[in-house]
Amino acid sequence: MDLKECGYSLANRKQMRKKSIHPCQSTDKDVIKEAHAENVMTNLSNAYASDLLPSKEGEDLTKCFLLRVVNILLHYIEKTFDDKSKILDFHHPHQLLEGLDGFDLELSDHPESLEQLLVDCTDTLKYGVKTGHPRYFNQLSSGLDVIGLAGEWLTATANTNMFTYEIAPVFTVMETVLLKKMCGIIGWRETEADGIFSPGGSISNLYGILVARYKQYPEIKARGMAVLPCIVLFVSEQGQTPFCVVATAGSTVFGAFDPLHDIADICETHKLWMHVDAAWGGGLLLSRKHSCKLSGIERADSVTWNPHKLMGVPLQCSAVLTREKGLLGACNQMQAEYLFQPDKVYNINFDTGDKTIQCGRHVDVFKLWLMWKAKGTYGFEVQIDRYMELAKYFYKVLKKKDNFKLVFDAEPEFTNVCFWYFPPRLKHIPKSFERDQELQKIAPKIKAQMIVEGTAMLSYQPCGDKVNFFRMVFSNPATRQTDVDYLIDEIQRLGKDL
Amino acid sequence: MDLKECGYSLANRKQMRKKSIHPCQSTDKDVIKEAHAENVMTNLSNAYASDLLPSKEGEDLTKCFLLRVVNILLHYIEKTFDDKSKILDFHHPHQLLEGLDGFDLELSDHPESLEQLLVDCTDTLKYGVKTGHPRYFNQLSSGLDVIGLAGEWLTATANTNMFTYEIAPVFTVMETVLLKKMCGIIGWRETEADGIFSPGGSISNLYGILVARYKQYPEIKARGMAVLPCIVLFVSEQGQTPFCVVATAGSTVFGAFDPLHDIADICETHKLWMHVDAAWGGGLLLSRKHSCKLSGIERADSVTWNPHKLMGVPLQCSAVLTREKGLLGACNQMQAEYLFQPDKVYNINFDTGDKTIQCGRHVDVFKLWLMWKAKGTYGFEVQIDRYMELAKYFYKVLKKKDNFKLVFDAEPEFTNVCFWYFPPRLKHIPKSFERDQELQKIAPKIKAQMIVEGTAMLSYQPCGDKVNFFRMVFSNPATRQTDVDYLIDEIQRLGKDL
Repeated sequence: MDLKECGYSLANRKQMRKKSIHPCQSTDKDVIKEAHAENVMTNLSNAYASDLLPSKEGEDLTKCFLLRVVNILLHYIEKTFDDKSKILDFHHPHQLLEGLDGFDLELSDHPESLEQLLVDCTDTLKYGVKTGHPRYFNQLSSGLDVIGLAGEWLTATANTNMFTYEIAPVFTVMETVLLKKMCGIIGWRETEADGIFSPGGSISNLYGILVARYKQYPEIKARGMAVLPCIVLFVSEQGQTPFCVVATAGSTVFGAFDPLHDIADICETHKLWMHVDAAWGGGLLLSRKHSCKLSGIERADSVTWNPHKLMGVPLQCSAVLTREKGLLGACNQMQAEYLFQPDKVYNINFDTGDKTIQCGRHVDVFKLWLMWKAKGTYGFEVQIDRYMELAKYFYKVLKKKDNFKLVFDAEPEFTNVCFWYFPPRLKHIPKSFERDQELQKIAPKIKAQMIVEGTAMLSYQPCGDKVNFFRMVFSNPATRQTDVDYLIDEIQRLGKDL
Repeated sequence: MDLKECGYSLANRKQMRKKSIHPCQSTDKDVIKEAHAENVMTNLSNAYASDLLPSKEGEDLTKCFLLRVVNILLHYIEKTFDDKSKILDFHHPHQLLEGLDGFDLELSDHPESLEQLLVDCTDTLKYGVKTGHPRYFNQLSSGLDVIGLAGEWLTATANTNMFTYEIAPVFTVMETVLLKKMCGIIGWRETEADGIFSPGGSISNLYGILVARYKQYPEIKARGMAVLPCIVLFVSEQGQTPFCVVATAGSTVFGAFDPLHDIADICETHKLWMHVDAAWGGGLLLSRKHSCKLSGIERADSVTWNPHKLMGVPLQCSAVLTREKGLLGACNQMQAEYLFQPDKVYNINFDTGDKTIQCGRHVDVFKLWLMWKAKGTYGFEVQIDRYMELAKYFYKVLKKKDNFKLVFDAEPEFTNVCFWYFPPRLKHIPKSFERDQELQKIAPKIKAQMIVEGTAMLSYQPCGDKVNFFRMVFSNPATRQTDVDYLIDEIQRLGKDL
């Protein structure tokens, strides 16, 4: 589909109303009809935002402009999935600030033409990072799910707020359907569980801890922190008052899973709240083969689970789930009547805004709902099982390579695989402070060069006594085995002379 | 532009690769070529998400699917701005949960066809609320800005995170450009100011208060709340320790502005942090005629300003700004090396994730940046000044109406206009507890009927000793004077027999 047709149909049908489109001085309808589609496109240099809807007769121009934007996006999507395209065209911050090839970030008092805005859109994508590229392994969130993307476009168009049922009837009900589904998958009795979607894992964890604290000390709501003892999250040796244990299911770097049953036993004995941060690992519950790694999560009191990580939902999509219904509301609600009126025409239990400290929230549920419809639970499972296979493959290949060393010898628990690359000059030097000081510099140098060349992206970090090592991670549906092989070759190419 | 053409061009050019499109059993190319565009569309009933990119040869199907989604969205946008269309097609939560005309919200293990997803998208919009409709006055955030929408579509397609420059180079730099611009408009010396975009006004206010507390008690970072005295936000009579005053510029219900200079004087004298919640009122700074209402804001230490309110940026877009540079970072950063590596190829001051308690954030800056480019500062000013005019017009009309009573006699300070409607049976009854009990029910009843009929939406609430009154508010660019007149008639029509 070429959007030149859009220009044509616009010209033919509506005879290019001069008011909104200003077609290059020409007034002759026939000339316009015959004008090449490309010329029609350039006409937007004389059109401005103020000509678009809700401006009178702005309808055709609005469609034309939005379709031209979509055309830019479709080209970008195509390139995203093309492993021969670069992941990024790297520049330094100061270069972007100074302006690159006419891409001027500065804001002015005066408007720019719609044509210039299209150029700005193209440039924004040109200098960005293709996070859906098959060789983008940089974050736990990666990939570009087309259904999720469609969901985001619709969400943006609906432009509402997870505040009340009144202004987001479908989305608030979808949220309850999703939360019920997710609580069911965790293993909680569905009718009793609860939750909300929040802006990311840190905020979801915050909600989990707020609820834990409220459950133990409900007086905090009216009387504040001052009435509490000095409470701590983990049992410490200083004799302070523990109230909550946060377990991790899928750690960021190593992809490690805490033993949830053991932790649940301790929490039960000592009456502590058990929160599981499954932001990364939660998605594994959808795999019948691998969900056992989260065994015991059904005993948790609250769980953070980010569908924008392993499940590949576009950013952002994070849920905090609680086993006991009503706690989020009891803990966070202010019942401000100027925000949440009690005398409404519908069941106000769906006015979910008052369950949060945010009041309004971005609509993060629709894309997940649409993806779930599109894939079915089994579709997610297939995708996730494939990541696990790829991780195993990657691990096995690395294990055989002389100049790579795995941070852990054992097969990976999750899709994270951590490893060092040793350039030939360091390969045979035994571990020592001096050698580690050299090794520490290798990953950053390889990564820097990868970014500059735009060939692949993966993360590295030090951890404890381990100097900088790479963390490979699989959560990108576009990644194939060939991309994995490519990455290994690429690391060797860039690293061998370091 | 009709997307039937999309089907056609797809059929003609790519001869409907059978693998991905499954064209209704037919294999004859000529038949397909001649097939009516509508038939081509129905072909997606045999196509699934797994056939889309990154699936091999999924390119054409991906374009076709996304363009069909866009077609649905374009029709929705058209209807949004049509004042003859209903704002919503009201149903109760249980009706949505039970399923309306085949709109089934339940999630299954098995996938649905792309065609069914398109129906789901249509239904999602059908049962939602058109927040850009000219007669949607329900929230401080209303309207549908086409440029902002395009910005959101692009943001969704780029699908990255305000975490590091590495993965969001253009967006993190755009954020600094926007923050600098906004700090400049507030009146702070640009090089010294700072800020971040956060998920909504409540979280922005939270950041303001966290910074205020940190500035006064930096030891909180290492040693926690327990080392602090019992601090309070407002000076109380109980002799506790005040540390911060939160002033409001544009209150939610009345649109009132606190006297910022007076508050700044007090804060200076007592060395208190001054935070201004200008979530709603901040946009007024862009009006040369009206910005004086925020005079003194330049003396604040921190400011919350939501471009998703008066400036009409799609939800969500909220900034917290601080006069002193570096405080957000000092207060919130954890310098976790597994998240933010110090040994990078670029200037890591642009790795803004560590300035927040969130780590990653949704990209909320691009739509604002694109709108600013599109309108220029003057474009926002024109829009905002028009809202102020409409508010004045509405106030003047109501003042003359016998059966309407303004909550405040004076001309509105902002675009909020609060009023009661008195049905004839209550008009001549003097104020009394019994009369107020009856009056309390009027606004909810009128609102309920408006929602059921889908003719207009505006909010009501009680406040202190004032029983339920309507709050009209202007922030919707589609609203014209005729819509205001319509609303007044509509309230009378629905209310006269109550």
